[in-house]
Amino acid sequence: MDSTEVVLSDWINVVDLAGVLGNAVLGGIAARAARLDIVGFIILAILSGLGGGIIRDTLLQRGTPVAFTDPLYLYMAILGAVVAFFISFTSRTSQRMLILLDALAVGCWAAAGTQKALVAGLGWLPAIILGMVTAIGGGMVRDVFLMKVPTVFGGNTLYATSAFVASIEMVVLSSLGLPVIGSVVAILSGAALSLLARRFGWILPT
Amino acid sequence: MDSTEVVLSDWINVVDLAGVLGNAVLGGIAARAARLDIVGFIILAILSGLGGGIIRDTLLQRGTPVAFTDPLYLYMAILGAVVAFFISFTSRTSQRMLILLDALAVGCWAAAGTQKALVAGLGWLPAIILGMVTAIGGGMVRDVFLMKVPTVFGGNTLYATSAFVASIEMVVLSSLGLPVIGSVVAILSGAALSLLARRFGWILPT
Amino acid sequence: MDSTEVVLSDWINVVDLAGVLGNAVLGGIAARAARLDIVGFIILAILSGLGGGIIRDTLLQRGTPVAFTDPLYLYMAILGAVVAFFISFTSRTSQRMLILLDALAVGCWAAAGTQKALVAGLGWLPAIILGMVTAIGGGMVRDVFLMKVPTVFGGNTLYATSAFVASIEMVVLSSLGLPVIGSVVAILSGAALSLLARRFGWILPT
Repeated sequence: MDSTEVVLSDWINVVDLAGVLGNAVLGGIAARAARLDIVGFIILAILSGLGGGIIRDTLLQRGTPVAFTDPLYLYMAILGAVVAFFISFTSRTSQRMLILLDALAVGCWAAAGTQKALVAGLGWLPAIILGMVTAIGGGMVRDVFLMKVPTVFGGNTLYATSAFVASIEMVVLSSLGLPVIGSVVAILSGAALSLLARRFGWILPT
Repeated sequence: MDSTEVVLSDWINVVDLAGVLGNAVLGGIAARAARLDIVGFIILAILSGLGGGIIRDTLLQRGTPVAFTDPLYLYMAILGAVVAFFISFTSRTSQRMLILLDALAVGCWAAAGTQKALVAGLGWLPAIILGMVTAIGGGMVRDVFLMKVPTVFGGNTLYATSAFVASIEMVVLSSLGLPVIGSVVAILSGAALSLLARRFGWILPT
Repeated sequence: MDSTEVVLSDWINVVDLAGVLGNAVLGGIAARAARLDIVGFIILAILSGLGGGIIRDTLLQRGTPVAFTDPLYLYMAILGAVVAFFISFTSRTSQRMLILLDALAVGCWAAAGTQKALVAGLGWLPAIILGMVTAIGGGMVRDVFLMKVPTVFGGNTLYATSAFVASIEMVVLSSLGLPVIGSVVAILSGAALSLLARRFGWILPT
């Protein structure tokens, strides 16, 4: 890596962890809506913030999921649960911040999952699937545990589509030897697409 | 393998992939009933067509699930999703075809899962359990994601029982050194039992 | 191990297997309430009695889950399903016995999961999480399959909290080189806390 790539890699790590924190807070907000206790907050925060990566690593079978081997991930998820337990994110600014973190995380996680699958030797199609699992798996499992049909199944502002586009970009740019650029492009396009879809109410045909 | 076994093996592979296609279409039909978009179709098709094998391979921990390493499986599942998205299977003939593919898949998948567990060194009881997981796991997970109590839990035409019988047959015939014959017997008996149960409304006592 | 530790280890194994049996019966009772057939009883008994350990071992990725390699576990789970299918546990004594087995299992499973994660080289925080997964994961999955928000998410007599306390005790005592003592302390404190919470209606704040 040259020095630009090092700086970009650092930024990608920040986006990754900020995404865990943001999604953990969103899990905690779902726990509050379901009137759960602090244990419920922590379980939903871990599922929301780390579930996708845990499922990806469990499917890849290249060792214990990174969510359990790099302590930063669990710290961030539990921090998010505790923050959501004590603070209700009702102000417009704080809600916009969460939406932004969530939107940045979609592409970041999709790219990370795709790249990890490619490095593990999988083909482009399974890599895209595992990129999408990384980005949307945690939210799907959180929804199921709260007895809701997962929102990614339809009508939710192209969250899964954003992950799909980001994964494809990563497959292309990674095959060109540019995984760091791939992550950056995936983060930006994923955030742009999911924020625009939310703003203009874009949905897929049913 | 002698030449008869090679022919039989080819047929077993065809039944396996046809089962993936048929179950993917069934997942897509469930997605249509729930009014999901194309992403929902693809997720449910993958869960229905490949979920059982993915869970089996994840539990066995002998490497990344074959659903991700052999590209044919994902092609078939996604093909099933796309077909179900554009075609509504309302004709009597097409519904009978799907029921037949599904019935053939039960025994085929149960036998494949049992045999893979035996080859991995597990005992006969875990092998039967993993055979059943292979055959019914995908449908169970699909039902849970759609907020339905899994139909295999009761009253659905002996689907799980067909898988159970097929798994036992495979344990016996595999221990006699006849895994290919075991697959054929399992496919035929599984299809016969589940079709007869459907025709005559057989259920287990509760 | 000295001879006292050997005796204690034997007792811990007995508590472990008795916990599987007790939780399998509880799974069967849930199956009866949902009017399932014998297949449903067996699936729910396996999920309740073995699900937590299966999830833990699948996440740890140190080989096929012990629930599939040590046949005693599946025997106990299936025995529990069959017993629950034929006997309805309505007498006060039998219900108290099940509550006691369940309470003893919480701490036992939390300690076993924590210790296994520590031995696999994980840090204290992931070890606590995996201890809790071992103790409460099976019940969570059982609840989801029956379309209920998992009871551990709130208001259920500190079951998850008991697992949390037991896991912490195991981290401390294991780091002092006393894993057997850790299991015993975890079993006793887990049972005491969950039974007291049930008796006095203790819940966590929401």
